[in-house]
Amino acid sequence: MIIVLKQHSGQKEIDRVENLIKTKGLDTHIVKGAGQTIIGCIGDTSRIDAKLFEVNPYVDKVIHVQEPYKLANRAFHPEDTVVDVSGVKVGSGNMAYIAGPCSVETYEQVLSIAKDIKAAGANMLRGGAFKPRTSPYSFQGLGPEGLDILCAVKEEVGLPIVTELMSPEYLDVFNEKVDLIQIGARNMQNFDLLKQLGQVDRPILLKRGLNATYEEWIMSAEYIMASGNENVILCERGIRTFETYTRNTLDLQSVPVLRKLTHLPVIIDPSHAGGKWWLVDSMAKASVAAGADGLMIEVHNNPEAALCDGAQSLKPEKYSELLKDVKQIADIIHRQ
Amino acid sequence: MIIVLKQHSGQKEIDRVENLIKTKGLDTHIVKGAGQTIIGCIGDTSRIDAKLFEVNPYVDKVIHVQEPYKLANRAFHPEDTVVDVSGVKVGSGNMAYIAGPCSVETYEQVLSIAKDIKAAGANMLRGGAFKPRTSPYSFQGLGPEGLDILCAVKEEVGLPIVTELMSPEYLDVFNEKVDLIQIGARNMQNFDLLKQLGQVDRPILLKRGLNATYEEWIMSAEYIMASGNENVILCERGIRTFETYTRNTLDLQSVPVLRKLTHLPVIIDPSHAGGKWWLVDSMAKASVAAGADGLMIEVHNNPEAALCDGAQSLKPEKYSELLKDVKQIADIIHRQ
Amino acid sequence: MIIVLKQHSGQKEIDRVENLIKTKGLDTHIVKGAGQTIIGCIGDTSRIDAKLFEVNPYVDKVIHVQEPYKLANRAFHPEDTVVDVSGVKVGSGNMAYIAGPCSVETYEQVLSIAKDIKAAGANMLRGGAFKPRTSPYSFQGLGPEGLDILCAVKEEVGLPIVTELMSPEYLDVFNEKVDLIQIGARNMQNFDLLKQLGQVDRPILLKRGLNATYEEWIMSAEYIMASGNENVILCERGIRTFETYTRNTLDLQSVPVLRKLTHLPVIIDPSHAGGKWWLVDSMAKASVAAGADGLMIEVHNNPEAALCDGAQSLKPEKYSELLKDVKQIADIIHRQ
Amino acid sequence: MIIVLKQHSGQKEIDRVENLIKTKGLDTHIVKGAGQTIIGCIGDTSRIDAKLFEVNPYVDKVIHVQEPYKLANRAFHPEDTVVDVSGVKVGSGNMAYIAGPCSVETYEQVLSIAKDIKAAGANMLRGGAFKPRTSPYSFQGLGPEGLDILCAVKEEVGLPIVTELMSPEYLDVFNEKVDLIQIGARNMQNFDLLKQLGQVDRPILLKRGLNATYEEWIMSAEYIMASGNENVILCERGIRTFETYTRNTLDLQSVPVLRKLTHLPVIIDPSHAGGKWWLVDSMAKASVAAGADGLMIEVHNNPEAALCDGAQSLKPEKYSELLKDVKQIADIIHRQ
Repeated sequence: MIIVLKQHSGQKEIDRVENLIKTKGLDTHIVKGAGQTIIGCIGDTSRIDAKLFEVNPYVDKVIHVQEPYKLANRAFHPEDTVVDVSGVKVGSGNMAYIAGPCSVETYEQVLSIAKDIKAAGANMLRGGAFKPRTSPYSFQGLGPEGLDILCAVKEEVGLPIVTELMSPEYLDVFNEKVDLIQIGARNMQNFDLLKQLGQVDRPILLKRGLNATYEEWIMSAEYIMASGNENVILCERGIRTFETYTRNTLDLQSVPVLRKLTHLPVIIDPSHAGGKWWLVDSMAKASVAAGADGLMIEVHNNPEAALCDGAQSLKPEKYSELLKDVKQIADIIHRQ
Repeated sequence: MIIVLKQHSGQKEIDRVENLIKTKGLDTHIVKGAGQTIIGCIGDTSRIDAKLFEVNPYVDKVIHVQEPYKLANRAFHPEDTVVDVSGVKVGSGNMAYIAGPCSVETYEQVLSIAKDIKAAGANMLRGGAFKPRTSPYSFQGLGPEGLDILCAVKEEVGLPIVTELMSPEYLDVFNEKVDLIQIGARNMQNFDLLKQLGQVDRPILLKRGLNATYEEWIMSAEYIMASGNENVILCERGIRTFETYTRNTLDLQSVPVLRKLTHLPVIIDPSHAGGKWWLVDSMAKASVAAGADGLMIEVHNNPEAALCDGAQSLKPEKYSELLKDVKQIADIIHRQ
Repeated sequence: MIIVLKQHSGQKEIDRVENLIKTKGLDTHIVKGAGQTIIGCIGDTSRIDAKLFEVNPYVDKVIHVQEPYKLANRAFHPEDTVVDVSGVKVGSGNMAYIAGPCSVETYEQVLSIAKDIKAAGANMLRGGAFKPRTSPYSFQGLGPEGLDILCAVKEEVGLPIVTELMSPEYLDVFNEKVDLIQIGARNMQNFDLLKQLGQVDRPILLKRGLNATYEEWIMSAEYIMASGNENVILCERGIRTFETYTRNTLDLQSVPVLRKLTHLPVIIDPSHAGGKWWLVDSMAKASVAAGADGLMIEVHNNPEAALCDGAQSLKPEKYSELLKDVKQIADIIHRQ
Repeated sequence: MIIVLKQHSGQKEIDRVENLIKTKGLDTHIVKGAGQTIIGCIGDTSRIDAKLFEVNPYVDKVIHVQEPYKLANRAFHPEDTVVDVSGVKVGSGNMAYIAGPCSVETYEQVLSIAKDIKAAGANMLRGGAFKPRTSPYSFQGLGPEGLDILCAVKEEVGLPIVTELMSPEYLDVFNEKVDLIQIGARNMQNFDLLKQLGQVDRPILLKRGLNATYEEWIMSAEYIMASGNENVILCERGIRTFETYTRNTLDLQSVPVLRKLTHLPVIIDPSHAGGKWWLVDSMAKASVAAGADGLMIEVHNNPEAALCDGAQSLKPEKYSELLKDVKQIADIIHRQ
């Protein structure tokens, strides 16, 4: 941490700030320039709240040098983390191919889609039982009944299931039944929920908030990890920008950036990012070419009748063709 | 709702879409242009999911004409709502002057600040007991103990208290003790929590999410209202933009816009928006000049030692001076 | 400038970076922490391109301590600049009340509006002769003929005129005829045009680009000043954000922020920011309450027939009422 | 165009709006719902300014159904445009591989890089002679001398050259010497410059503005096309968002979206988007996997000494390896 003093601070002011820093257990190193003095703070600054210094009347600004996260930081954990989802490995070259309907509707629907995506090469089944909807008047998901449908299909088809948890109320049920627990974009900073995920044995799929910076996103993973659960997969699903033709802007630079900053696996959800099915094909290929550890794609056997987000779903045949190309691109990338 | 068909759709396609619309209980009116056909849907479209039509292969786009909210909509409720917070009225010319420390630290601290702000003209006391923090290593608030301190000060000083609820776990305690329950920006779309607020007797202060559109924000109020609690005050606290010199960009256009769209009161929190104490003075004045129904301002007797967000707190004397000017501006505005 | 070396850099790497810094005429001061070394650079770094260091293989990041602008910097010029626009003073408590139609249409139209706004208390007349339009098929302004109309009205009514320059082609004509030359948001980083403004005797009104940071905006003023013209007035007109209900988001925090960073006057254009006439009244009051040095407002005698941007224009009577309130608010603020 | 009237408009109001529409040469079709009336406007609305209707006191909103561009619109020109850059074809499966230094520094530098990139498989040479820089104190490019160096290298190596035009002053020189004239992001809405490009025989490379929507970007291409030059290649180079770890956010959804909206070729510049050389490799692969018609990449033989933007340049060997992978990915995609 570097503290920049206000211009033309005198020795008395410098001393006072220096003493304040030392009370926090840090060493100091003072650099005087022409009119400007800066103080380098030496020690573990990751758990010190910089605001303590920002309010000091002699301080102009506080600059961070270290990242504020530890457990998720690649600097302290150089090897890729491989997350095991009930036998399916994700990360370090192991690809997650997650697919399924936006919402669970009926057993027959989910079963049919699950068989199709498995045949196409998917290794996990997704489906929403609890749905976060902007409007209280929109379909909110089947709830526990939807969860039971997913479990029944899992039994039949043999794919691990991924579904979203919206409330601490269902934590135990999810821990028992769900192979990979998804935390949605709107709950990425529901810190109360994040803390409770430390008590769960299941791996967590943490979606990026619509306006979360990389650092905030990793900090939310750090919340889960610091609570005791280190099995976190990150999922980019688009950010909110000024462009409104697409629902959100898919940020594929997140793949190489997160690769550098953290050891956790990163997958991409191109279906929610754009909100249009005809964007999924090209964005899925681009995601894998960018080096993502997997894809989460909405597939529906009858998008026109889907209870939610049908507009962004692929039909099973289209998904099957897509996976063929995607796997060829993965080959080219992984050979390096 | 208006449905625009793909260019050069034939009569058969038009008929199929028209039939689909009618199955949803709407009437239709068809307008054929040169190459382009549009279908006007007549009836109550507010509870119909437009995505059902968007996925139709003959549909180019679906355009909404009506707002998707009812209870919060000024069109259906032309008079300003006045929310009663334990005797303090807010809305329709009644100003909320909420002030207090970011975090509750000690009884003495809160008591001292409460006395000062009351003397300055504030009519509600704020203070965080549960704090949403980006980092798991930052101070998370005193929790229930902080709530007890607020209650004790309320007893002593006589100002209604405002504090943030982060989890359904404390719903009953808040309903018992807190005069105005704040839902923070990061929980604005924690739909599970919003639904539970319908069971509470207390009014709700709903902060705008960092990237929430006006419509999404009002829809979150609609969630609370549709669950049974119509006493909602909206609070603008800055949105996230590309500008990073300030923490967030305070959007004061929200005041006239919300005035037009909804009958609920709107107040402004200039302290969190900018994140710098020296922005509060001018932004508070601007907020009132813009027609806001109140201000929520951080005041601390010793900002330099504040456990969180000291950088954006005013000292009590500064707050007192500010309120004098603010009230003069309010006079000019209200006289109209 | 502070240079942070990569973690665990050895002495040899530190020496190499230090030598590189010294070749640029700067002194160095080295701070070694646990695993992390930083180098403080002492000297005038404002004209050194930081990218030279960022590409160094041993450098992790480069942090700026000083602002990159000099002439516009309040640190080097503590007193407010007062810009003289053909006798009308702007800045340091002197308010610019600029009003007029979006586009110049006819002599009669401009004359009628000019008389009305003068009677209401305006001290400058605006009107677009050259219009930047998103579509090549929209009305592009009357061009030189529009300029002549403005001049004729100025002769008649006696208000200095403000109009936008879009191309170096008309530089001499504007220098001869226009009292305050406006550079629009879309040309804020037309660096070629900015440089040529140094040859002009007239003051410049520099609008903020839709996505310009405060620093970039001030740097564009610095371009004009460094070219020889120090009479620059800054004009906030809204920035582009995710919110699309309003045309742009008016950033009133710009007023106190620019007040701190620069000595140049800052005025607000609430008409273009929101794009709706019913937002102008409250935002104009808020702007003045925030401490702005003036307002630029679109006024049209027949907004329904305006050739462009009628939707955001006030009628003269409305403008007159508004100025009365605005001046009362200005009184309250200036008394401090 | 659809015009939505204010709620509960009476027949007289409807008639007045209808008459206004008819004076603009459009036919009308009226749809009356419960409380809400809409008017469909039939005819060529692309050249009618919607603001004329928005200001009408009886109108609630105006909704566009047709895109406002014609020449660039795929609906009116279904086949891909192939742009010929001095013999190198771009579009419809023909890839542009443009590479070279950010700034032209010396003949030897450009010659060496040009030979390397040609050997690696590039088919055009880029290099900046005129540089748009945020600061007036940064290196502004060699100007005409830089252009001469590019021409000399072109003579020697035989690659068409691409370089940025910043001012109408050099239009004739560029038309004579430059094979593909680049218009930079900051000049994307320099409408005066765009109009003049119609007089040029050379194809234009139009970069997306940092905050330009797809529609605005295409409208700027429409400006050039409407002025008489239909050879436009679009180049995505990142947009400005809240994320600041990268310089800009690369929006690869632009590739499929533009493919749908326009027939013009689309290429990607991953070097400027991220601003970090280590992002280029993965983003270049992703761009081609997304279906882009080419790549524009900064290559420098000595990035550490580059006069500008060295941080985002690849060394020639790295570029050569990258192109090998890229071409394999292009094969997979094009086979479809």
